[in-house]
Amino acid sequence: MTILLLTSVPADEENQWLGSLRAALPEEEILLPRDMNDKATVELAVVANPPKGVLAELPNLRWIQSLWAGVDALLMDPTLPEDVPLVRLVDPTLARSMAEAVATHVLALHRNLPLYAKQQQQAKWQQHILALASDREIGVMGLGEMGALSAAQLHQLGFKVRGWSRSPKSLAGVGCFAGPESLPAFLSGLDVLVNLLPLTDETRGILSRELFDRLPKGAGLINFGRGGHQIEEDILVALDSGQLSHAVLDVFSQEPLPADHAFWRHPDITLLPHVAAPTNPRSAVEIVAGNIRCYRSTGELPKTVERLTGY
Amino acid sequence: MTILLLTSVPADEENQWLGSLRAALPEEEILLPRDMNDKATVELAVVANPPKGVLAELPNLRWIQSLWAGVDALLMDPTLPEDVPLVRLVDPTLARSMAEAVATHVLALHRNLPLYAKQQQQAKWQQHILALASDREIGVMGLGEMGALSAAQLHQLGFKVRGWSRSPKSLAGVGCFAGPESLPAFLSGLDVLVNLLPLTDETRGILSRELFDRLPKGAGLINFGRGGHQIEEDILVALDSGQLSHAVLDVFSQEPLPADHAFWRHPDITLLPHVAAPTNPRSAVEIVAGNIRCYRSTGELPKTVERLTGY
Repeated sequence: MTILLLTSVPADEENQWLGSLRAALPEEEILLPRDMNDKATVELAVVANPPKGVLAELPNLRWIQSLWAGVDALLMDPTLPEDVPLVRLVDPTLARSMAEAVATHVLALHRNLPLYAKQQQQAKWQQHILALASDREIGVMGLGEMGALSAAQLHQLGFKVRGWSRSPKSLAGVGCFAGPESLPAFLSGLDVLVNLLPLTDETRGILSRELFDRLPKGAGLINFGRGGHQIEEDILVALDSGQLSHAVLDVFSQEPLPADHAFWRHPDITLLPHVAAPTNPRSAVEIVAGNIRCYRSTGELPKTVERLTGY
Repeated sequence: MTILLLTSVPADEENQWLGSLRAALPEEEILLPRDMNDKATVELAVVANPPKGVLAELPNLRWIQSLWAGVDALLMDPTLPEDVPLVRLVDPTLARSMAEAVATHVLALHRNLPLYAKQQQQAKWQQHILALASDREIGVMGLGEMGALSAAQLHQLGFKVRGWSRSPKSLAGVGCFAGPESLPAFLSGLDVLVNLLPLTDETRGILSRELFDRLPKGAGLINFGRGGHQIEEDILVALDSGQLSHAVLDVFSQEPLPADHAFWRHPDITLLPHVAAPTNPRSAVEIVAGNIRCYRSTGELPKTVERLTGY
């Protein structure tokens, strides 16, 4: 019984993944589709943006291991077999990387770096009063591993921190809000809003004009969730009216973002090419190898994704 | 006996300082030079960039309290009375603000923000491998209140941290180096060098080609110390050769930096108008008022600046 590596990443990256997985699991037979002789021998698929339709053709597939933490694109694929358990990458390194990205960009907004960058372009020497971190309210939407660690890191940096999630949570130093009815209270008075929600039917399009209008005028937005969370036109309108002062966007409805998209050259957008919490190949391979070895010795699967909620 | 407020800040800022100091010290008579009838009544001067020569004309001046943490400009004034004790602002809020500035810009360099900003200008979507913070070596020169807190904050964020100071120090989680003979070992292998040294005869011009050449090719530089620490031409040469990949500069030999200076438009410089750790008026007034009240009740001066070392 073999393991199939299914990706649509560039060939050199695919070969690196293959080499690393084979080195970490020397007892397993790990193949690319072109080397697979019999589809019936494939028991397990390790996937990173898998080509559509291939998973559905594997009659004895027991489970699917994603190399990415986010599996929303995979779940939207209608050819994904409904009855095969799906495991996403749960990597503490990823949560640390996300918390680091959140800290980096909240600090950048807090310290007015976009404004000082504009002044630099104009050779303009002007100092602005600096608020204390303890006078800033930062809101984190989504309190899974990534959101919880990000909120804790912001709290450690001295910010006032609020969190919002579907189900009630309790986190040290973080004012926690839960459910749609508490969203207006959560948003009220925020200096910076950070989105780390999973993409589900409930959260799609949540970063909309209606939500921005509940923020204080001039708030900052950081979207490190998914492109599907944001109404792109509404972001442009909110920036141009000053309702949002600046947006840091790492995710988009279409990726790579087309070169003619208005976001690229907007003076109040920091645009990142989906790099807030990139999979770290070294730790991802360790975790996937551990999952597979555990399955071989006990027959038990790691925690699987609930198809209904998407995480 | 009166207190004289001596500044060269704009009139509205001077009036704010005067109002805040009077509110915090209602029992004292606090005057501006234009309201002073008799120079012999001035016992104490609170100063922020004081006009040259005025301090020398006060026959009964007991001590000088600076509203700034850095007193190097004051010490270079030949009219500063030699025998009057000088007290600089030692404000824990300032050290926290500096540690925050250091964290902000080390994180920005660590996460390749200057490169992603260039890509955004070109509408170029390209991801780059992200090192773990624990794989980055950050070096902090100067381990006073600001340097020590900055190093601790970087350590908390997961970076490997080294510190360098004139006299030996011991800080949890920070590899400490002391003295000129250990400077090459300190610099070797650093990803980012942060300067927080005081400006003295020993440290003037320390950020020079000779020092940059001891860093690994492509290191980042952050100067939050003083303009006098850096040889500006050497920074340009090091950036253009790639010996330095990027420089974050907050201080300059001439401030405001002239609009025609090459630094403003250099693509590999982040230029800030001396805002890394601005005096916070609220906490500064509290500290100065506390110093003055303590002096009135005990006759004792706060820790004074040593003229020889400059801090």
